[in-house]
Amino acid sequence: MIRVDAVGVCGSDSHYYQHGRLGRFVLEQPLVLGHEASGVVVQTGVGTLVPRVGQRVSIEPGVPDLSCPQCLAGRYNLCPAMRFLATPPVDGAFAELIAVHAAFAHPVPEGISDNAAALLEPLSVGIWACRKGRVTAGSRVLITGAGPIGLVCLQVALALGATEVAVSDVNPARLALAQQLGASAVLDARTTRLGDLGWPPQVLLECSGYPPVISEAIRALDRAGRAVLVGMGGEEVTLPLAAVQERELEVTGTFRYANTWPTAIALVEAGRVDLDRLVTGTYPLERVEQALTASRREQATVKAIVVPQT
Amino acid sequence: MIRVDAVGVCGSDSHYYQHGRLGRFVLEQPLVLGHEASGVVVQTGVGTLVPRVGQRVSIEPGVPDLSCPQCLAGRYNLCPAMRFLATPPVDGAFAELIAVHAAFAHPVPEGISDNAAALLEPLSVGIWACRKGRVTAGSRVLITGAGPIGLVCLQVALALGATEVAVSDVNPARLALAQQLGASAVLDARTTRLGDLGWPPQVLLECSGYPPVISEAIRALDRAGRAVLVGMGGEEVTLPLAAVQERELEVTGTFRYANTWPTAIALVEAGRVDLDRLVTGTYPLERVEQALTASRREQATVKAIVVPQT
Amino acid sequence: MIRVDAVGVCGSDSHYYQHGRLGRFVLEQPLVLGHEASGVVVQTGVGTLVPRVGQRVSIEPGVPDLSCPQCLAGRYNLCPAMRFLATPPVDGAFAELIAVHAAFAHPVPEGISDNAAALLEPLSVGIWACRKGRVTAGSRVLITGAGPIGLVCLQVALALGATEVAVSDVNPARLALAQQLGASAVLDARTTRLGDLGWPPQVLLECSGYPPVISEAIRALDRAGRAVLVGMGGEEVTLPLAAVQERELEVTGTFRYANTWPTAIALVEAGRVDLDRLVTGTYPLERVEQALTASRREQATVKAIVVPQT
Amino acid sequence: MIRVDAVGVCGSDSHYYQHGRLGRFVLEQPLVLGHEASGVVVQTGVGTLVPRVGQRVSIEPGVPDLSCPQCLAGRYNLCPAMRFLATPPVDGAFAELIAVHAAFAHPVPEGISDNAAALLEPLSVGIWACRKGRVTAGSRVLITGAGPIGLVCLQVALALGATEVAVSDVNPARLALAQQLGASAVLDARTTRLGDLGWPPQVLLECSGYPPVISEAIRALDRAGRAVLVGMGGEEVTLPLAAVQERELEVTGTFRYANTWPTAIALVEAGRVDLDRLVTGTYPLERVEQALTASRREQATVKAIVVPQT
Repeated sequence: MIRVDAVGVCGSDSHYYQHGRLGRFVLEQPLVLGHEASGVVVQTGVGTLVPRVGQRVSIEPGVPDLSCPQCLAGRYNLCPAMRFLATPPVDGAFAELIAVHAAFAHPVPEGISDNAAALLEPLSVGIWACRKGRVTAGSRVLITGAGPIGLVCLQVALALGATEVAVSDVNPARLALAQQLGASAVLDARTTRLGDLGWPPQVLLECSGYPPVISEAIRALDRAGRAVLVGMGGEEVTLPLAAVQERELEVTGTFRYANTWPTAIALVEAGRVDLDRLVTGTYPLERVEQALTASRREQATVKAIVVPQT
Repeated sequence: MIRVDAVGVCGSDSHYYQHGRLGRFVLEQPLVLGHEASGVVVQTGVGTLVPRVGQRVSIEPGVPDLSCPQCLAGRYNLCPAMRFLATPPVDGAFAELIAVHAAFAHPVPEGISDNAAALLEPLSVGIWACRKGRVTAGSRVLITGAGPIGLVCLQVALALGATEVAVSDVNPARLALAQQLGASAVLDARTTRLGDLGWPPQVLLECSGYPPVISEAIRALDRAGRAVLVGMGGEEVTLPLAAVQERELEVTGTFRYANTWPTAIALVEAGRVDLDRLVTGTYPLERVEQALTASRREQATVKAIVVPQT
Repeated sequence: MIRVDAVGVCGSDSHYYQHGRLGRFVLEQPLVLGHEASGVVVQTGVGTLVPRVGQRVSIEPGVPDLSCPQCLAGRYNLCPAMRFLATPPVDGAFAELIAVHAAFAHPVPEGISDNAAALLEPLSVGIWACRKGRVTAGSRVLITGAGPIGLVCLQVALALGATEVAVSDVNPARLALAQQLGASAVLDARTTRLGDLGWPPQVLLECSGYPPVISEAIRALDRAGRAVLVGMGGEEVTLPLAAVQERELEVTGTFRYANTWPTAIALVEAGRVDLDRLVTGTYPLERVEQALTASRREQATVKAIVVPQT
Repeated sequence: MIRVDAVGVCGSDSHYYQHGRLGRFVLEQPLVLGHEASGVVVQTGVGTLVPRVGQRVSIEPGVPDLSCPQCLAGRYNLCPAMRFLATPPVDGAFAELIAVHAAFAHPVPEGISDNAAALLEPLSVGIWACRKGRVTAGSRVLITGAGPIGLVCLQVALALGATEVAVSDVNPARLALAQQLGASAVLDARTTRLGDLGWPPQVLLECSGYPPVISEAIRALDRAGRAVLVGMGGEEVTLPLAAVQERELEVTGTFRYANTWPTAIALVEAGRVDLDRLVTGTYPLERVEQALTASRREQATVKAIVVPQT
């Protein structure tokens, strides 16, 4: 049992709130939102061997069945029986207390703030994207979309040694933040074409979810390039078959993440990734609606945090 | 210098002959076709250390520059300076003699026929596709298209231990041959939907090049499935974004092959792959036109071979 | 709850019986041995969703905690909290009934015999070894030791497309069986040196556990070769440092297996691996002692099976 | 043709100078030493397409035959026909001019000094070691030996996102430098045992070449740990068989490097690795003997550089 101290607002939360659905998930009854959460253990279950009450934790919001073939193979994010916070029918973390599986409540060291502990969840999305893209030392990376996910992808790519990381978006405030966080180039997608980058990317971390951008970005890839489709929203993506074949491009989707918390904690603790920089506002639980609509209302919003204990 | 003994007719040869172009390659002057060739060494260059005259060889038709970053990294098939037989401006192997790079004339053991030695080239396409698809023991594989490439993919997948290999096509003669070669299921694409297979494939080896088939086949893939796009012809392929993401599908193109001849020779010599079964007709050099049009004229044609020394 | 129908005798069972210990595991109280087991489900637990009573199953004998970092990463064989049949303090399967975790009781298709279903366990050891060694089409493999593990390694290597598989042992009966099962060469280790093989192996599957053999076999490896140390028994292995460096050899140990049952079932069902050929004797439960000592008494013994329901 | 501007002194140069041999290579006639070199192109060969005279370059000292199976597979460092500077019978770079293969003279951007351009060679050793060890974000790494190779391993591991990197050595000056370069822990090997690190390393980058250290360090590895044996010198290494098996440790040697220069250049240009910090002295060509003996004479020597044009 966790006393919730900080919960990030994800685009999916805002989308559920505004539209009552997200892709194939349609809300048919009220749902508590919020799945980027940190807090403190206030009670443990029967049979707990190690005392954990009082421990600060970051919550990994998806709990798989642990014993299906996908789970046993280490791909627990693809478990068909996954129960995920704030995804129907499972209530989320915009709450004062929440019960979670002990193995998915990751202890957090002192140097990581409550907000950053909550944002280990979106950081995990970025770590997973970089793993799928095999970003490594000297990689040349293009990130399309500079929202919270694009910005964590940027930070993880840099932490992995990528030496060219370009970020494109239509929002100048976000591009400015990308530059401050270390992007080697930022592109205003309203005026610049991705092909004008000057170097063909080896890895595309696609965080816009906008089909025309996806297609254009894939076309910009270098031989043996890899496209990782992180951004959701589009229905269909059009691939240029000849380019995919002649350059042997690899296109892959990502679905959440697996085995990322230890890496996320290590990166933040070591100062390689700065999550606090992404926080643009905090809200008490009774103002959760403002938190959910902040990014729609203000272009400068990157990440709103709900703080239930205020 | 090789005395050419057998040259397979590839679909690309027939396409060049009929249309005068293939994708972005347009013929502006006469071109000798043929790139699946075997023969005997009749002369070697200055500085050859090992005597090779009289040696039977299979010709790997693409010679890269060997020293660009792609070559040095072992991806020589992606070399921008590749010179490939029967691809403008390089003449091909429908000829009595042909000069080739010594390292790309692979010695062939006795047990492999001249025809099979020529067909190590399409076999290489199948080996490369199976490597990209990471086919292994127990894999469940779907192959769309039962032409020569689909049929070598089938044989290689079985040789790698795949235990379910379904093949779809619209040509009953080819499906019958697929069944004889060990396919665990054959699907008449005119009457059966790929989703009705009964098991979701882990690997798709797409050999039709027909965009609607590609999209349907990708949709049929299992979680963590891999689609390898081998078949050429289509302009654009439509990917279902949500499926690619939720199942973390991986889609990749193939462009020829790299480092496949040793594997191809070993598989044929050990009897794991039967290339002679694919030969449906042989033609002397003066009847090369009939060879080039055989598959258009007769549905039962799988692989026509030109035999220059008759 | 499983009614046990067949249990293979493993070398570790015989070793425990004779010596009262195995490596660092020392028996301090009686232990039921046997961990290669098949049977029929006779009862299921509360909360079972799918009816399984009457189902034939093969038992995967190690049950990990499923939620530690090793388990979540898909390496559940390295789980520190693993409970494994016939390893103190967990009793084994030389019994009429045994209770197992539902996810580790794998349904077995009709075409697989009870004995073969039991022997999916040693087959899993062979599958795991071949995975670690990255055996694939055209691989040249050396297997040192032709006991049950060496013989399943042989069969799996062939099923994966290895085209040269040499097997060495000191027991002529076992070498003869290796030859019947498809080994391309057999070496009598008393009279032949591994370096005289004629081709340098790319993969060594070491199943003898005898340090001098291990060192000699590693020295025989080709550039970029891989040595997989499966056989137990030795204390220390001596590596030739210069050879390991100049050829960039890779040496790895294996500990049991993970995610192998689906592959094992598929290979046996498809007839790619024949486990029944390994059975050299069956024994009722009251003659388990004879089963445990069979390999010590008779050189021709490969695999003894205990059949509790006779 | 390169005008040589800077050449690093490697331990192998000093060893050849003092002992007249290095492992199996014995000097039977005079040999010019030096293989870590940078300079400026002063002349190009017939057939050069791109003008390069005047270009600053870093020399990759090993030129393989480019067309053997190892080269074609991207493992050109394992080419049996490799010709390597300062390895008999090939003269090295302690010279005013040197002729090299154009593809192995890598253009160097302005921001990289002559000294650093020469030291891209040892940096490549570190990059290769980290690749073999699969060092990545959040890795816990132990480096044994803080000579020039250990120190570049340290910097590369950090650049790849490793968050715990401990370095052990017996030389306090080198440990102090390791700490300045970002090591999270330094261990005086004379007084501290590797097992006392507090965390089990996932990756060992062994740079001492001293067999007792190698064995002790391997024993300290975590489950699924990887040991990369970089340091030369020992004859035989003793592996603890049970630990290698129960933890599924992977032990691999490295031999030089392949495809590392682009990464090395990118890391230095981006400021992720600082090679100038390693330079402890420069010497004109006539004082090459002092350069070769510097590390023997002064404990504070890390890397001596010969500057032929002074």
